[in-house]
Amino acid sequence: MRTRAAVAIEAGKPLEIMDVNLEGPKAGEVLVEIKATGICHTDEFTLSGADPEGLFPAILGHEGAGVVLEVGPGVTSLKPGDHVIPLYTPECRQCEYCLSGKTNLCQAIRATQGKGLMPDGTTRFSMLDGTPILHYMGCSTFSNHTVLPEIALAKVRPDAPFDKICYIGCGVTTGIGAVINTAKVEIGSRAVVFGLGGIGLNVIQGLRLAGADQIVGVDLNPAKVEMAKRFGMTDFVNPKDVSGDMVAHLVELTRGGADYTFDATGNVQVMRTALEAAHKGWGESIIIGVAPAGAEISTRPFQLVTGRVWKGTAFGGAKGRTDVPKIVDWYMDGKIEIDPMITHTLTLEEINKGFDLMHAGESIRSVVVY
Amino acid sequence: MRTRAAVAIEAGKPLEIMDVNLEGPKAGEVLVEIKATGICHTDEFTLSGADPEGLFPAILGHEGAGVVLEVGPGVTSLKPGDHVIPLYTPECRQCEYCLSGKTNLCQAIRATQGKGLMPDGTTRFSMLDGTPILHYMGCSTFSNHTVLPEIALAKVRPDAPFDKICYIGCGVTTGIGAVINTAKVEIGSRAVVFGLGGIGLNVIQGLRLAGADQIVGVDLNPAKVEMAKRFGMTDFVNPKDVSGDMVAHLVELTRGGADYTFDATGNVQVMRTALEAAHKGWGESIIIGVAPAGAEISTRPFQLVTGRVWKGTAFGGAKGRTDVPKIVDWYMDGKIEIDPMITHTLTLEEINKGFDLMHAGESIRSVVVY
Ligand SMILES: NC(=O)c1ccc[n+]([C@@H]2O[C@H](COP(=O)([O-])OP(=O)(O)OC[C@H]3O[C@@H](n4cnc5c(N)ncnc54)[C@H](O)[C@@H]3O)[C@@H](O)[C@H]2O)c1
Ligand SMILES: NC(=O)c1ccc[n+]([C@@H]2O[C@H](COP(=O)([O-])OP(=O)(O)OC[C@H]3O[C@@H](n4cnc5c(N)ncnc54)[C@H](O)[C@@H]3O)[C@@H](O)[C@H]2O)c1
Repeated sequence: MRTRAAVAIEAGKPLEIMDVNLEGPKAGEVLVEIKATGICHTDEFTLSGADPEGLFPAILGHEGAGVVLEVGPGVTSLKPGDHVIPLYTPECRQCEYCLSGKTNLCQAIRATQGKGLMPDGTTRFSMLDGTPILHYMGCSTFSNHTVLPEIALAKVRPDAPFDKICYIGCGVTTGIGAVINTAKVEIGSRAVVFGLGGIGLNVIQGLRLAGADQIVGVDLNPAKVEMAKRFGMTDFVNPKDVSGDMVAHLVELTRGGADYTFDATGNVQVMRTALEAAHKGWGESIIIGVAPAGAEISTRPFQLVTGRVWKGTAFGGAKGRTDVPKIVDWYMDGKIEIDPMITHTLTLEEINKGFDLMHAGESIRSVVVY
Repeated sequence: MRTRAAVAIEAGKPLEIMDVNLEGPKAGEVLVEIKATGICHTDEFTLSGADPEGLFPAILGHEGAGVVLEVGPGVTSLKPGDHVIPLYTPECRQCEYCLSGKTNLCQAIRATQGKGLMPDGTTRFSMLDGTPILHYMGCSTFSNHTVLPEIALAKVRPDAPFDKICYIGCGVTTGIGAVINTAKVEIGSRAVVFGLGGIGLNVIQGLRLAGADQIVGVDLNPAKVEMAKRFGMTDFVNPKDVSGDMVAHLVELTRGGADYTFDATGNVQVMRTALEAAHKGWGESIIIGVAPAGAEISTRPFQLVTGRVWKGTAFGGAKGRTDVPKIVDWYMDGKIEIDPMITHTLTLEEINKGFDLMHAGESIRSVVVY
């Protein structure tokens, strides 16, 4: 079939909107009509050329929601008409990782996914002249139609709006999951969140959901304060306004250090501050941000010997097929909010404007509606 | 009273054996006759002058066992004749840290202990000319008699031999506790232990006790192999014999990375290898070693984002008054071994020989018997 997509032809160039060929689903695969997709920093990271593993030409996008149109042979858990959210972290429920009970990093299709290919080692997309186009993070939601493995689709309730729940495909789940799955924050905790962007805000609402007593937000941009307060931030710190040592300032503000700290900036110096602002004896610091290629975190080992724990999280530690439908329910039940974070809605033709808004720091989330 | 002690007069000099004055116990304090004491790396670290927080003159030693001779006003949990192990990490059971349930780092007397003083801000030791001598880690077991706060003494069964259980005051508990309290190793785990000295061997027997399936030991010194095997090591790796990348070698040996890795060397480069040799998705790396002043650990944050956890441990996460008596029972019941690790027994007059043996790498533990 033919479909309409925004194609990343090469690094550093705007996306090109064009018709592309899409082959139907093979065994274990599913054809999905994407109804809406968010534009996330990770798409930007790859498109900019900063991602050393970025491959081109490719169809980016990994934060979508849509409807199943057709299933390939052997697909049993999905049927045409099902509403789904694509998963860049699949959940096969069979591999050593899935069965460990300790991680969400399913490895079933990792090797081919990392190469921009479907599990059989081929791509379903091509240009009209036949040039193959690579998949991206196993999702490629910047195409109106896409093909995914069955294990990379979460089936969600049909009454949830696509243009909101698409954000659960990455940002919402990453932020809330970091709190709930990775940190396992307890009621009454004190926490610090570094970076009040699309991820940080979701960490904040995750902390509110978990019953944290103090939720300190840290950002260089004071324009982020209002929205962060709306999601539960109790204290704001702008590093530019702190004359002395940032760690000492935060330790005092949290009366001894935070029980949990989260980096949602991707800056390795911030990651160190986050670790060291965690409470002696038990404070845990969770890295969510993706650092520039080659950047390293460091600290004195004494920080760990005296009880701080350094962790990271990918997709908020969520097992997509199991956890994503629950988060959709939480949204529909009003337990969490998404609408205010979707600051811009665009058509596919306008998708490059979404990247411009991101660069200008004007959007939290731009969503493309097909 | 007068007692006999090995005094650290200044950094970098041998200890001087001499008679010293010791004041009796004040409120909440206990006079203990030390019957035996181990010589640990931390004593050496301070004596050498490498410890930036080292203070002199002081009576070192923190790995002892003895008998209560006299209790000060208000002491309720101990009486003369009780057998005890001094605790450099006390357990007041009242402070925020003790009550958190998340750490063993009781803070009740930390400020004064760090200054070499008793909780009332004074010292009980002095030279015969009246010059005050500082306490060390709140213990000072290189004196035949010493005074400690009640909260810094674990009461142990009276039939356990002092010259063996003194080692439980630091090395045994640190190594076994790192496995049981900090890592919480499960049956069937794969583990790597870096450094097969007095701490590493106890990590190894902790892993055996916890039912680990694979226990890889790593040391530059092949003379450590025989003893490590005796305590449960299943595989040995000498970094000098590995031509390629150490991390890749260990990941292959443990079939994907270790569930738990432990640094018992104090070398920050080893700490990085230990983290990176931990299993993607869930591997935890525990820092036990104490690094040189100013040294820093580092890694790419991606290592944590993909599920590895970096932790540290002090005194094996053990709450001394609660856990140390249990470890003494385990020794008496034959669940753990201590005797083979005590390679040298010395008199107080010979104590400097213990440091020489340590420098030469000839001892695992030298114990001074009074
Ligand atoms: N681990 C995962 O699974 C995962 C998933 C999605 C995104 N991410 C990463 O999370 C990070 C945040 O993503 P986002 O979409 O929220 O980005 P964003 O640009 O919307 O927000 C980042 C925020 O951090 C602030 N900031 C930047 N430098 C700062 C500093 N030094 N101190 C304080 N604040 C600072 C910015 O002002 C901004 O508000 C990115 O690195 C992204 O790649 C990780
Ligand atoms: N965290 C705590 O509570 C605590 C308590 C006691 C001791 N410690 C620390 O634990 C560490 C170990 O103490 P120990 O008494 O076992 O020391 P040790 O000297 O007996 O043993 C260290 C071992 O590490 C090996 N080693 C050194 N460099 C190495 C390298 N690069 N690669 C592989 N092996 C290497 C040595 O050959 C030796 O066998 C020290 O740093 C000590 O200060 C920590």
